[in-house]
Amino acid sequence: MSVVLVGAGPGDPGLITVRGLQAVRACEVLVYDRLVAQELVDEAPPQALRIDREPLTQDEISELLVRYGRAGLSVVRLKGGDPFVFGRGGEEAIALTQAGVAFEVVPGVSSLSAVPAAAGIPITHRGVSAQVTAVAGHAPDRLDYEQLAAAPGTLVVFMGLGALDRIADGLIAAGRDPGTPAAAVGSGTLAGQQVVTAPLAQLAEAAAVLSPPALAVVGDVVALGWTTGRLAPAFPVTAEAACGGLVA
Amino acid sequence: MSVVLVGAGPGDPGLITVRGLQAVRACEVLVYDRLVAQELVDEAPPQALRIDREPLTQDEISELLVRYGRAGLSVVRLKGGDPFVFGRGGEEAIALTQAGVAFEVVPGVSSLSAVPAAAGIPITHRGVSAQVTAVAGHAPDRLDYEQLAAAPGTLVVFMGLGALDRIADGLIAAGRDPGTPAAAVGSGTLAGQQVVTAPLAQLAEAAAVLSPPALAVVGDVVALGWTTGRLAPAFPVTAEAACGGLVA
Repeated sequence: MSVVLVGAGPGDPGLITVRGLQAVRACEVLVYDRLVAQELVDEAPPQALRIDREPLTQDEISELLVRYGRAGLSVVRLKGGDPFVFGRGGEEAIALTQAGVAFEVVPGVSSLSAVPAAAGIPITHRGVSAQVTAVAGHAPDRLDYEQLAAAPGTLVVFMGLGALDRIADGLIAAGRDPGTPAAAVGSGTLAGQQVVTAPLAQLAEAAAVLSPPALAVVGDVVALGWTTGRLAPAFPVTAEAACGGLVA
Repeated sequence: MSVVLVGAGPGDPGLITVRGLQAVRACEVLVYDRLVAQELVDEAPPQALRIDREPLTQDEISELLVRYGRAGLSVVRLKGGDPFVFGRGGEEAIALTQAGVAFEVVPGVSSLSAVPAAAGIPITHRGVSAQVTAVAGHAPDRLDYEQLAAAPGTLVVFMGLGALDRIADGLIAAGRDPGTPAAAVGSGTLAGQQVVTAPLAQLAEAAAVLSPPALAVVGDVVALGWTTGRLAPAFPVTAEAACGGLVA
């Protein structure tokens, strides 16, 4: 297999898959995202060509994968999280298919559940949330707030740190309770992880201390965190969330 | 750390995380789900106590984790997929917290994205889907079809094989286009993987050949599959999906 699209996981290098690490250790060319842990980049063989994708456009990345793949080299495209959860892996897969270059996909642990879990928040929980909606927050004007405000369960916002005020305002204007428990997690699963919690209406203000990458979680599961030491909710616990009995 | 809740990933044993495999290899007690690959159960040390959770209730599992955790043994609770994406990991985490037993969480690759990816379907794709909604299908009467039918992007249904007819009917009655591209994947990521595609209205009929575990995907991303050899859509490609240019 000449090209492998590998999900590196949410941050902590131990959260790459066994197969993904095998691919990195066997590669001749490694094209990696800025958010991928240095420890994983270091796992490539010493003689491997390492390419930081940061200065490249998506088209340039795809071209690079096609070019090295056609040359018959073992190429690993190491992406943060999972390649297909807001990871643009589909564009690379299509480019490779159109160029006739064989490739394989090794999925990764998405931040979707892993980052809330690292903050003590289960995104689904019996009797509290049986539905999860995930959106990207970098283009807040494109979100359908009426629909999102009506969605039961948990809302997870990727890449939304700079737009949390507009997203929260949009949800509240569309009818979501301003007191809905919410959290934002910066550098989730890493040593520098920071968690803030607040009612939805105050989430943006509370999250001002965070730097990207960050993930936001909105819903009653936030008040369910089992790690009482780490989560200190700034809001009263809702009736649903109180079933866990963990948050005072 | 006495108890570790580990996500085993979507099926293929190579998709466990590096840290998860380390925990399994070091455990003294392994409590595992039926759907976890035998290869992973075999990774536990020969002298480890292996407990199939199949005949146990959720309360009994939690009690077992507390009991062995209190005894100071290294316990691994190995769960299919990710512990917190319809995995009931939160209930175990809360039971351990309430009992004062220290625990750690090692997230896993969820089927949410990995199983569609194994069938050639990216659950998000620029210009096609920027939102993902995940629900459990085993209780189809509890789903809010009005809200789900209005949700943009991709719908992923876990554990819904036995109720696909009712789920599709509910979505269509609430306004979803009966011709929406849809797929169901049985035994995703495993050697016995089976993929069927059909317009939403015919999905249940097409999926009758599958056995659990199965995941269903509804949305234009289904027509975007890059693995044309594996996906043979039984529906015309929509304008949005045609941008990939892969499905005839």
